[in-house]
Order: sequence, then C-alpha cells, then structure tokens
Amino acid sequence: MADPITFYFDFSSPYGYLMSEKIDDLAARHGRPVRWRPILLGVIFQTTGSAPLTLQAPAKAAYYKVDFARSARFLGVPYRLPGKFPLPTQQAARAYYWLHGQDCALARAFAHATYRALFVDDRDISAPETVLDIAAGLGVDRAALAAALAGPELKERLKTEVESAIAAGVFGSPTVIVDGEMFFGVDRLPQLERWLAEGGF
Amino acid sequence: MADPITFYFDFSSPYGYLMSEKIDDLAARHGRPVRWRPILLGVIFQTTGSAPLTLQAPAKAAYYKVDFARSARFLGVPYRLPGKFPLPTQQAARAYYWLHGQDCALARAFAHATYRALFVDDRDISAPETVLDIAAGLGVDRAALAAALAGPELKERLKTEVESAIAAGVFGSPTVIVDGEMFFGVDRLPQLERWLAEGGF
Repeated sequence: MADPITFYFDFSSPYGYLMSEKIDDLAARHGRPVRWRPILLGVIFQTTGSAPLTLQAPAKAAYYKVDFARSARFLGVPYRLPGKFPLPTQQAARAYYWLHGQDCALARAFAHATYRALFVDDRDISAPETVLDIAAGLGVDRAALAAALAGPELKERLKTEVESAIAAGVFGSPTVIVDGEMFFGVDRLPQLERWLAEGGF
Repeated sequence: MADPITFYFDFSSPYGYLMSEKIDDLAARHGRPVRWRPILLGVIFQTTGSAPLTLQAPAKAAYYKVDFARSARFLGVPYRLPGKFPLPTQQAARAYYWLHGQDCALARAFAHATYRALFVDDRDISAPETVLDIAAGLGVDRAALAAALAGPELKERLKTEVESAIAAGVFGSPTVIVDGEMFFGVDRLPQLERWLAEGGF
C-alpha cells in the first residue's frame, strides 16, 4: 500500500468539514490511504496568535461567512453555519481517538457523522450528550464511551496529537500532508490532486 | 459592454501578482473588462489587525513561502521570493494612478512590468528610481512622472482609493469583486470562473 496522507482538522472548522467530504475519494483515486487526525485549533492558535475566522475583523468575518457557504456550493457539499459557532470540540476529538483505538472505520464514520451533525443539522457537538448520541447512533456502547471520556487517558492522547501536529508545522484546519508536503485549506484540493497524480510539480 | 470586475491588489502581494497574470484572460473569456486598483495592505492591515504572511508565526511564514512558489508553478507563472520582502509600494501605486489618468493600457502595462520586476527580476520596487526606470522603459516621460510623484495630488488619490477599497470590504490582496460578490485570494480562480460562466452559483 502506498504511503498514507495525513488529514488534520478541527471539528469546528467549516473548511475542514468540506475537506472531510472530499479527501477520501481524492486519495482513493490515487491509491492512497488517509490518516484522519482531529486537533484543537484553540490550542494551536495560542501558539500562532491567530483567531477563528468569524471572530476576526468585521470585514474578514463577513467575507468568510459568505465564502464558507459559497465554497460548499462550489464543491457540492450541504452546509449551513451553525447557530453556535465556533464551539469547543474536545469531546468529539477525544471520542474519535477512543473509537480509533478499536475500529478505524468506525472512527471515520463517527467523524463524518459529527461534522454533518454540526454543519448540516446544526447540533451542538460541544455537548458531551450530543457526542454520545452520535456514537450510539453508530452502534457504539454509550456507557463505555462516557466512561472513557471521563478518564485522563483520552485527554492525554488528544494533547499528544495536538503537540505532534504543531511539531509537524500545522497552524490551521484543514491541513493535508502528502510525502512531507503540506497543503493548507480546502482550496488547495486542485494542487493536492495534481501532486498526487504527478508525484509533485 | 458587460459590467467591469474590480481587481484590488498590493504590488508586494505574491498572490496578487499571480492573480495579475490570470485575471485579464479569465475576464476576457467572459466578455468582462477589469478595473485594476492597487492598494496599500499596510494601511488596510492597520484596520484589521493583520500582518504580512511572511511576518506571521514561524510555521505560517514557512508554509506561505513554500505555497507562494508552489502556487506559481501550479498556475504556470514565473516567480521567486524577492530578496527585500515585504516592501513599501506607495511609489508604484501612485505611479499607476498617474499613468491611469492618461492611458489605461499604459497603466496596465506598468502594473505588469512592476509586478514582474519584483517577483521575476527581484528589483526593489520600493525605490522611486526603480519605479521611474520601469515607467521610462514603457516610454513614459520620466521627469513628468517624477514631478507628479513629488506632489500632493497622487498621495491624496491613493489615500482615497485605499479608503474606497476598505469601504467595499477589502481586507487583503488579491480581492476581486464581480457584480457585488467578493472573492479573496488567487485560489478562488476556479470559483470566479464558474461565477462568471454561470452568473452565480
């Protein structure tokens, strides 16, 4: 199997959501598996001095709200701006890593369901109950996941993943790394496609 | 003639340069004229609290240096990061508006020549002498331009243009506005193409 590509994202990132709907098909067309790695932009932004796009200067915030929706239409992905936005995503990210330890495909299904819960159905994925509901809807043992989310191991695991992303140079969501080459933003899909097809350009 | 589209850019913006090599052909394919409007990002960044990409956190600055060059290769445009970067662009922008008052096509040729002087030939376009050399190379009366650059009218003109861009919601370079719809970044070229072809999407 060819080397995997790595997809870093925050569950509250609109462009991360759009990438999540495209990256697996793109990679599959080029025979590449994808490693999904949820991270916490809040932690990363502390190291870079950045802020969520909708909390930036009024002209930027207004533009990005338009661009989120327009980019979704451009890519043919259903989308709406959540009522609560941005919002904390620790619970969702920790649940992902717990599921990933048991079943990669289940973790992937959970990630899709969580992104769609936020950006299609406007559910508050910062609430632990919502995360448990989403997982339970995929057949996950709700009590076991709740117990895991209450323990220290998953907090540590997520912290390690975020630190490892920062060490890899990640400063935003989505970030895709292919053979050491970093692509930031869903608008880099055409470059990613060409990079995978030609092995660089 | 169909309504013009407006192209805002700073002469020190790498993505603005890439857009400058693409926007006229794109617009012409859809029967649209383009209004070129150089602005000063330094002034705009004061209103938004932003900074040039290469002066941001190390991970971001490193990424953008790679992405400038990769995006140029992707678009088939010659490019290198200038030795002096970023740099002030008031002289170039003022010269543009002076030329524009006399001959639109000459102003366009000057804008292309200035961008290429910076991003292909690594010339210091912040120096008034370089701006005069570039203009003189296009047949412009060097002494007349030098006199105009020394007077208050062009300073006022550029100030007015920047204020008008800010009023239109511009917060970065390049920004293209089509029928009231704003597109920020050269990576929005595919969306712009579709917008022009379909009259929105």
